[in-house]
Amino acid sequence: MGLGTGYEQQECFLARSLEVVGERWTLLILRDCFYGVRHFGDLLAHLDISRGVLTDRLDTLVTASVLERRPAGRGVEYLLTDAGRALWPIIHGLSKWGETYLAGDHPPRVFSHAQCGSDTDAAGRCPTCGLIPDVADLVVRPADGHHAARRDDPVAQSLRNPHRMLTPLP
Amino acid sequence: MGLGTGYEQQECFLARSLEVVGERWTLLILRDCFYGVRHFGDLLAHLDISRGVLTDRLDTLVTASVLERRPAGRGVEYLLTDAGRALWPIIHGLSKWGETYLAGDHPPRVFSHAQCGSDTDAAGRCPTCGLIPDVADLVVRPADGHHAARRDDPVAQSLRNPHRMLTPLP
Repeated sequence: MGLGTGYEQQECFLARSLEVVGERWTLLILRDCFYGVRHFGDLLAHLDISRGVLTDRLDTLVTASVLERRPAGRGVEYLLTDAGRALWPIIHGLSKWGETYLAGDHPPRVFSHAQCGSDTDAAGRCPTCGLIPDVADLVVRPADGHHAARRDDPVAQSLRNPHRMLTPLP
Repeated sequence: MGLGTGYEQQECFLARSLEVVGERWTLLILRDCFYGVRHFGDLLAHLDISRGVLTDRLDTLVTASVLERRPAGRGVEYLLTDAGRALWPIIHGLSKWGETYLAGDHPPRVFSHAQCGSDTDAAGRCPTCGLIPDVADLVVRPADGHHAARRDDPVAQSLRNPHRMLTPLP
């Protein structure tokens, strides 16, 4: 990348991270992977992006070992690696920041600790157990409230019911 | 924004957050604001971006109340609001994620707790005091090590010495 578009002159690991996860749509693709979406077609249906952009982003994430691409049935599936899972606090934190400081015409998603059923707080902490559960121990559900413009793709429909994070969507 | 470039169909506060801070360069601009950079010219010299892109990003951040633009001398300065300061865990977390999982040809920056002098850990916690210091209570310095291509603009030069976060650079 040429000067002015790349971050390589920035001597900074934030810049290095943004080279991998800072492109448009990338964190939303990873959000879906945390929800349990594993297939190209499901990502395509749930995100309003072109095949070309989705392919490019997935290639970047696989090259950086954030996602693993592996055979599944007649196709392939994408799974978060340890490096990918380590991004959960970033994705959760940015979502909670938006809830706190920005307006939205939809209810937020709520995360609960699977072991005890308590909803976690804005910092991701379970108030009953006093710890920050691993993302694999969270159940996600939409809060009550009105959606101004609700999506109707299969992933969006599945996510209307409580769902254990990182497990495949029904 | 049209379908395919905007996130407005995503029913998600992560998407809302990314509309504000997810554009290229925005988190690097905010990183500089945390370091104490307050003026357009200093941001321009330290980031390899065009005036147009910097102007656009600053306008977005001011409109979203992440930065406050206020008169200073003959010009203006940009200061983080409470909403802006609340992004520190995201910026710190992404930097540490890059240090852990990506390669870089430069030493990382180290943060220490001003009150006791201890270096904070990857989670931002002070091991001596057992708490996560507010960003205003952190001192930043570069770790020892070789820079493959060191910058030489005034901001980069100032940041070679220990510096209290959020205070103006010398």
